[in-house]
Amino acid sequence: MTGHAQTLRPFLSRAVGLYPDRKIVARTGEGVVRYTYNRYVDRVGRLANALRATGVDRGDRVGTLCWNHDRHFEAYFAAPELGAQLHTINPLLPAEDIRRIVASAADRVLLVDASLAGAFAEAYDPEAFASVERVVVVGADTPDLPVEPTAYDEFVAGHGTDVDAPELDGDDPAGLCYSSGTTGDPKGVEYTHRMLWGHTMAILTPSGLDIADHDVVMPVVPMFHINAWGLPYAATAAGAGHVYPGPSPDPQDVVDLIDRENVTLTAGVPTVWLGVLDHLADHPDPEGALSTLDRIVVGGSAPPERLLRAFDDYGVEVLHGWGMTETSPVGAVSHLKPGLCDADYDRRVEKRAKQGLVLPGLEFKAVDDSGEAIPHDGESMGELLIRGPWVATKYFDSERRRPSGSEASETPRATGEAGDSRTQSDDAFDGSWLRTGDVVTVDPDGYIELVDRAADVINSGGEWISSQAVENAIMGHGSVREAAVVGVPHERWGERPVAFVAADGDDENRGGLVDALRGRVRTGYPDWWVPDRFEFVESVPKTATGKFDKIDLRGRFEGSLDGTVDATPPEGAE
Amino acid sequence: MTGHAQTLRPFLSRAVGLYPDRKIVARTGEGVVRYTYNRYVDRVGRLANALRATGVDRGDRVGTLCWNHDRHFEAYFAAPELGAQLHTINPLLPAEDIRRIVASAADRVLLVDASLAGAFAEAYDPEAFASVERVVVVGADTPDLPVEPTAYDEFVAGHGTDVDAPELDGDDPAGLCYSSGTTGDPKGVEYTHRMLWGHTMAILTPSGLDIADHDVVMPVVPMFHINAWGLPYAATAAGAGHVYPGPSPDPQDVVDLIDRENVTLTAGVPTVWLGVLDHLADHPDPEGALSTLDRIVVGGSAPPERLLRAFDDYGVEVLHGWGMTETSPVGAVSHLKPGLCDADYDRRVEKRAKQGLVLPGLEFKAVDDSGEAIPHDGESMGELLIRGPWVATKYFDSERRRPSGSEASETPRATGEAGDSRTQSDDAFDGSWLRTGDVVTVDPDGYIELVDRAADVINSGGEWISSQAVENAIMGHGSVREAAVVGVPHERWGERPVAFVAADGDDENRGGLVDALRGRVRTGYPDWWVPDRFEFVESVPKTATGKFDKIDLRGRFEGSLDGTVDATPPEGAE
Repeated sequence: MTGHAQTLRPFLSRAVGLYPDRKIVARTGEGVVRYTYNRYVDRVGRLANALRATGVDRGDRVGTLCWNHDRHFEAYFAAPELGAQLHTINPLLPAEDIRRIVASAADRVLLVDASLAGAFAEAYDPEAFASVERVVVVGADTPDLPVEPTAYDEFVAGHGTDVDAPELDGDDPAGLCYSSGTTGDPKGVEYTHRMLWGHTMAILTPSGLDIADHDVVMPVVPMFHINAWGLPYAATAAGAGHVYPGPSPDPQDVVDLIDRENVTLTAGVPTVWLGVLDHLADHPDPEGALSTLDRIVVGGSAPPERLLRAFDDYGVEVLHGWGMTETSPVGAVSHLKPGLCDADYDRRVEKRAKQGLVLPGLEFKAVDDSGEAIPHDGESMGELLIRGPWVATKYFDSERRRPSGSEASETPRATGEAGDSRTQSDDAFDGSWLRTGDVVTVDPDGYIELVDRAADVINSGGEWISSQAVENAIMGHGSVREAAVVGVPHERWGERPVAFVAADGDDENRGGLVDALRGRVRTGYPDWWVPDRFEFVESVPKTATGKFDKIDLRGRFEGSLDGTVDATPPEGAE
Repeated sequence: MTGHAQTLRPFLSRAVGLYPDRKIVARTGEGVVRYTYNRYVDRVGRLANALRATGVDRGDRVGTLCWNHDRHFEAYFAAPELGAQLHTINPLLPAEDIRRIVASAADRVLLVDASLAGAFAEAYDPEAFASVERVVVVGADTPDLPVEPTAYDEFVAGHGTDVDAPELDGDDPAGLCYSSGTTGDPKGVEYTHRMLWGHTMAILTPSGLDIADHDVVMPVVPMFHINAWGLPYAATAAGAGHVYPGPSPDPQDVVDLIDRENVTLTAGVPTVWLGVLDHLADHPDPEGALSTLDRIVVGGSAPPERLLRAFDDYGVEVLHGWGMTETSPVGAVSHLKPGLCDADYDRRVEKRAKQGLVLPGLEFKAVDDSGEAIPHDGESMGELLIRGPWVATKYFDSERRRPSGSEASETPRATGEAGDSRTQSDDAFDGSWLRTGDVVTVDPDGYIELVDRAADVINSGGEWISSQAVENAIMGHGSVREAAVVGVPHERWGERPVAFVAADGDDENRGGLVDALRGRVRTGYPDWWVPDRFEFVESVPKTATGKFDKIDLRGRFEGSLDGTVDATPPEGAE
């Protein structure tokens, strides 16, 4: 067919050709690295040649256990240029997950930060890591590892900068990232060159993150989290400057980097920015450290409205985006539509705090239990389904990709994994549609708001109750430390909500508190959303990734609730 | 592979879902049509169903002979949704060209504006139009035609709005446009869904035309010129408003539409905007008719600097873009890079008047006769080669696409055309690179400046002379009406320039004028760029599309120039 393939490399070629002197800056364990696209492309070339000399070829995977820095960014272009996949591994996962992920991906080379040697050593297992031919350590020190490490400088030494790259197609895989689902095995999501190309172009647009050559982009979101939300590729495509904040930046580091490097766009989870706000409150800054900063992209979880309001006071726009591993990741961004720019401030903040408007090129629908599209009334709830050129339509099938005869493919366990993966695929995909597992409302302006996870929503008499909404109402009470709400089986209604509450004060005198909590829920929601039971706990049990462990909580109810419900049943529920 | 196909339809689905009430406005022969995306999508559906009922199917072509209006815009989405190609035909081409184009494309349906019935009738030929099963006339009156016409309303009457569309792939063709080359047969350029998808995303970006939902976009560039530069698709993808200015808008119409419809972005060739400037000078406008207008995209030919300066005074940015039929069309846009925003005004205007910076996703190089890349010094000249996802890599091969057994495929003439087309392909494409035929310089900032057509550049002693540069120097003289410079064979230097000049005054006393013209060329360029001969003519001969007919001019020199050259030879030329 006509038209050249959509691949990543031309983004870099253009940046080098048009913006050779634009800066790439990284804070590392050993100080600040500062160079230009001109030198970057040479370092990418040297790394690509070193990888190839190790045997990395089209269809292989290169794993990374790295923070946000220059060497990691170099791998972002070096591996895909060879037709190999950049496989970013989250070093904060439990060792068991890392072990499974490496076994599933069959990485041939691993780049490991010296500071993450501990995570590597803990996860290491000769069988699971059988595919790994080389462990390259990034950093000044080469720590002791269970396998013989190669220092990065030694690894690339002697290699030239020109790469005899294969002619790639848009269908060639370029990336791989395992989704940290709260249940089941981690599932691999492959990114083809075409997916990353489309995602890059989409986030460059004004409907996306509106990235131009005059931007200086600093992803605080880790580069092991879905390609740092695609920012390293997009900033390169735009010819923008890059700043990588290195290992565990604290608020002072973040503010200093913004100030010193004239950052215009940064991105990370809300917690980071709440920390920065606290820091700024403690360290009033007459110099205007944020003076160049134009916008902060937040995602991963919903930002509290006060985050938007506080940064508005600094003249910085907080832009809320939604996405997931399966969507490369950005699927929606909450920009104000033309008609809303003149709305009053509270209304604008309310819209901006939502997950937003899906990007051009994507299609979405929100459907109820029977698969019917819900009305866009801002109240009806449905599971969000999404599809488009940068939305996965299946999971990585490690069996299919693994060279026949390799050790791992002969272990029954690996076969089992692939089987699991296919089963999960059936749940996650509906033809070309991704079932996001997110329960949303869609308002008349088309803004999506995430109200629950599909697994957590409570189905009471055929109507849905958002567990998150009820939790938030309960947690708004001053003496409640944390609260989780789960659906438990109920004879008449199918499910009814039960709240697990960790609160200050005496367990013996809870009657008044329960009344107050019931009242809080009733204030915002229908009577039948009020939990049937309030169970007081020392603390709410959590999963390895720090989320409420609702499977554990549901398990605490061996039987079902009895038939006595003290809330008004939903209208027309029978 | 994973990731859903890149097709056009989701751009429309999103616009309807998120911006149902955004306006689409068209000035037509019968007045102003004004509706919304909500109604637009129904009209697209009805047209698609009517086309399908006529037999239009995946792989077929739907031709249009139409101005810029709502019905034409409806065809932009209706034909591609069926997997058919929207084939826009330039009604201003010579009848013979239209005849060949229809025969080559084998259009099954033609949409023809009532006001263009004359162009249709003149081009019509039963054999060339044998593939055309239906001629649908757009407009209130149904004129007499050499074939039985169907009125548009009658054509779509009774059809539903829901389309049972085929599942398309990015490789499916969506568009077809014949390039109006100055030599040889028109060549068909096919646009796949993926090419148009990539082009759409690229022009949405800030490096492109930076189109957002708050824009109201009015393409004055005809919709038969390479999809109106892609603006109808991009405005839809952004959820922007649309304004279509209808048949032959004059400057008053253009200004009125901008004013009344709050247009923020408009586009067309420089001539249109020079006309608008003259109009504004004659009709000073205290109300600020251009108050909503943010930018004017110009292309097709280079804008004079005074155009940029004059619109700057109105607070409107003139954005110069470069492209061609083979590049879908936008390949470069002249934005100011970060470092240049603070440059002095003259320098900024000079940069903005250039063809600009290639868009993200594209690769380019400029090469000399031996295929070597030229230095980016703003002086060396080379032919521009470009490639990328929305750059054609071959021409439409009508033979391959035509159903076997159709009449046209059995005529020797059609076979000959396909043969020509393949020969031309060899010249136009170098692997995946498009040889643009444009001779450019590239300055150290990466801005491309078009200095000549490759066919017109003069190769003197192995060094290139830009015929356009010399022409411009000569035409700057007050008594010169027009001037064309061509290379003619020369024993020693290979080629030497000869100027054909149409000037005021007496032919008998040209000595002084020739001296003056020589002086003008010497002022800006090396001595050896001065033409060896100045031939005075009544007027310069032109091609059918109004360009200087340099083939004719070269033919006027039967032999070669003699060896006496009164200019200094280029350094190191031997």
